[in-house]
Amino acid sequence: MEHLSQLTASEAARRMREGLLTAEELVTACLERIRQTEPVVQAWQYLDEEHALAQGRAADERRRSGESVGALNGIPVGIKDIIDTADMPTENGTVLHQGRMPRADAAVVRQLRAAGAVIMGKTVTTECAYFSPGKTRNPHNPEHTPGGSSSGSAAAVAASMVPLALGSQTAGSTIRPGSFCGVYSFKPTHGLIPRTGVLQLSRTLDHIGLFARSLDDVALLAEELAGYDEGDPDTQPRARVPFTSVAAEEPPIAPKIAFVKTPHWERADADLQEGYAELVEALGEHVEELELFPSAQSAWDWQRVVMDAEMAANLEPLYLGGRERLSGRLRELIERGREVKAIDYQRVLKALPAVRATFDELFMERYDAILTPPALGTAPKGLSATGDPVFCVPWTLFGLPAVNVPLLRGANGLPIGVQLVGRRNFDARLLRTARWLAAAVG
Amino acid sequence: MEHLSQLTASEAARRMREGLLTAEELVTACLERIRQTEPVVQAWQYLDEEHALAQGRAADERRRSGESVGALNGIPVGIKDIIDTADMPTENGTVLHQGRMPRADAAVVRQLRAAGAVIMGKTVTTECAYFSPGKTRNPHNPEHTPGGSSSGSAAAVAASMVPLALGSQTAGSTIRPGSFCGVYSFKPTHGLIPRTGVLQLSRTLDHIGLFARSLDDVALLAEELAGYDEGDPDTQPRARVPFTSVAAEEPPIAPKIAFVKTPHWERADADLQEGYAELVEALGEHVEELELFPSAQSAWDWQRVVMDAEMAANLEPLYLGGRERLSGRLRELIERGREVKAIDYQRVLKALPAVRATFDELFMERYDAILTPPALGTAPKGLSATGDPVFCVPWTLFGLPAVNVPLLRGANGLPIGVQLVGRRNFDARLLRTARWLAAAVG
Repeated sequence: MEHLSQLTASEAARRMREGLLTAEELVTACLERIRQTEPVVQAWQYLDEEHALAQGRAADERRRSGESVGALNGIPVGIKDIIDTADMPTENGTVLHQGRMPRADAAVVRQLRAAGAVIMGKTVTTECAYFSPGKTRNPHNPEHTPGGSSSGSAAAVAASMVPLALGSQTAGSTIRPGSFCGVYSFKPTHGLIPRTGVLQLSRTLDHIGLFARSLDDVALLAEELAGYDEGDPDTQPRARVPFTSVAAEEPPIAPKIAFVKTPHWERADADLQEGYAELVEALGEHVEELELFPSAQSAWDWQRVVMDAEMAANLEPLYLGGRERLSGRLRELIERGREVKAIDYQRVLKALPAVRATFDELFMERYDAILTPPALGTAPKGLSATGDPVFCVPWTLFGLPAVNVPLLRGANGLPIGVQLVGRRNFDARLLRTARWLAAAVG
Repeated sequence: MEHLSQLTASEAARRMREGLLTAEELVTACLERIRQTEPVVQAWQYLDEEHALAQGRAADERRRSGESVGALNGIPVGIKDIIDTADMPTENGTVLHQGRMPRADAAVVRQLRAAGAVIMGKTVTTECAYFSPGKTRNPHNPEHTPGGSSSGSAAAVAASMVPLALGSQTAGSTIRPGSFCGVYSFKPTHGLIPRTGVLQLSRTLDHIGLFARSLDDVALLAEELAGYDEGDPDTQPRARVPFTSVAAEEPPIAPKIAFVKTPHWERADADLQEGYAELVEALGEHVEELELFPSAQSAWDWQRVVMDAEMAANLEPLYLGGRERLSGRLRELIERGREVKAIDYQRVLKALPAVRATFDELFMERYDAILTPPALGTAPKGLSATGDPVFCVPWTLFGLPAVNVPLLRGANGLPIGVQLVGRRNFDARLLRTARWLAAAVG
């Protein structure tokens, strides 16, 4: 029997438009599902059932009144607890921000409210969206990590607690937990979705991340969030991207995919390597192996410099104000970052535009997408770490859009995703290619 | 008897429009003046008389043909030798770039050509637009420095070799030589005039600088150069600023001026201090003394961090490729910059927006302009240094527009300017206020 909490956002929105479902019913179903699964999964940092229901009833009231409603009217969305909400605490995963009440919504939360969404609650993040895990467990097996740092958002969507959730990615914090939890996750082009009101780790590397259980839902959510915000200097005024219609199209000609193993392929688990070999074989002539050009291979060294330097600067107030209450690991990383030389940092920033331009050419001339693993394998056992972001590093550093497609299983039955990476600012087409891939191997 | 080389650009342009003067005559007069004065002043790094005359004749031909011509048609402009020209070498003041031929014009040179200007030649810069002087001498007294780093541009305009010239300012390289040479010089709001194709020392601090012998001419030149260029990430698409008409207006109400001595006032020469005391007295109720708010007083420390760090990164190819052919002083500064920590550098960059906003408020609520010295006094004797930029540092760091108005004389008869600083992005109004000031004390 279908449980309403399992509906995708697109399907729930359709039913609400047709008068077959109310937002209150949907929120009620999601809260019920949360009550059942939360004791094991532990996805939520903050949840006020009454507040969520009130938002659902308000969404129903808007619709009943006949006023035009947004595309997400009445749809519950989980918000990673580094994204500011004016009506709920935002604690950034650190005791130093316990009970912190933001003065204003983050730009993306403002957009969600404008689209009619129900801000369901705040999902668990690792400490400052970095390495030290929160309490969340993998819904597929609670002895395994859900991945991080967007742990709660990935797990909540995977456990059907909400159809949609927002996270972030500075290294692999959206794509990796998407893979570990078996859901779609999407990291857009750098600068496509504004980060105003989100804990800043690294202006160069930070991205908003999206979680959903279908590609239509990813597109639906992305369409509401893409845009300019004067608080984020990396966003630009531009025409609205018709995500849902582009992502739903058939590609005019069959895509050409580059399979990129990266220099770290040997570290991947055997069952991931096997799964990818089969996948590549199944795709046949549509895929060819590609070695990354030399400057792109510097990504891992460069990312470390930028991440260390910018994170140390952005978290300096926490470090100076209460370093003894940070985890030892975070303290060490900040201290490492405080030693980075400005010239090394600037050297990397200066090198990035040329690499981005080379990727633009690669996509323009030869490939629709890059296929590459989202993680080393299935979610590792244990809750003391959230897995390695190594396979996400270059796409984050170069600002390319990336999507995790939940297509494979490991030997232990846990999910393994397929990461597709696309051309900068062609995010909707990447989702179209992902749909083609899912159908081709489905 | 009037010599044509002494005409302002505005007057020369008027005569050309009315058929009373040809560009060839004007260029010829300027070349004649250069032949007379250059042996002493030494303003030019590169000058090809025939090439200049050919541009003048082409300007006359455009006008005769009846096609619409630009506002600077036939007007000679000197170009600091760190600004790329596709048809002349650009050597950046270093033997390491001897004979360097740029592949393309800098954005400002492209704009000048589009406006019909005659690119007269390349003017002397200090080594890499930094401290070590070139050969240029002060036209008012050749035993004194013309100031720097835009030494040749300031001297060429002061000596009536050209009516207009372009320079740059990263600390005080436009305002200070303008003061020492007794001409108008203008450093616009950061990001107003694109720096594409100009030797980069510091993205945060670099500005294009303008030199002229009248405020009308400053406005005429600024109007052609302000604008967006995709190669300069600090420029923005925006409506054209009607510089000439705004600068020519009477202020609707008498301006209110803040006299800012800065924490370095005691270092100023006695005759400058006296001159300013008289000036402030003459302005009476229109001026009041203002102490800089605390964060603005950090400017000098902050500027050093940003300048050291960015300059070291931008000049790294020169340093690695031929440090033994750099001056000892530049080598030392680069080596100091290579040691700056990324966290110290980023801390300053993060602090700037709040200070800029405070200045915005100060100008919005209370003052039309800040009045402050452009230099410690008249041009120092000797050619081994170009003077101290200390009084220009905050306005450059915070990106505020500044203009030098040549109003005073020192005890030795050499010029002392009056620096007026305005609100960001209100550059044309600053020129209007400067006109009011010149009339009020003139």
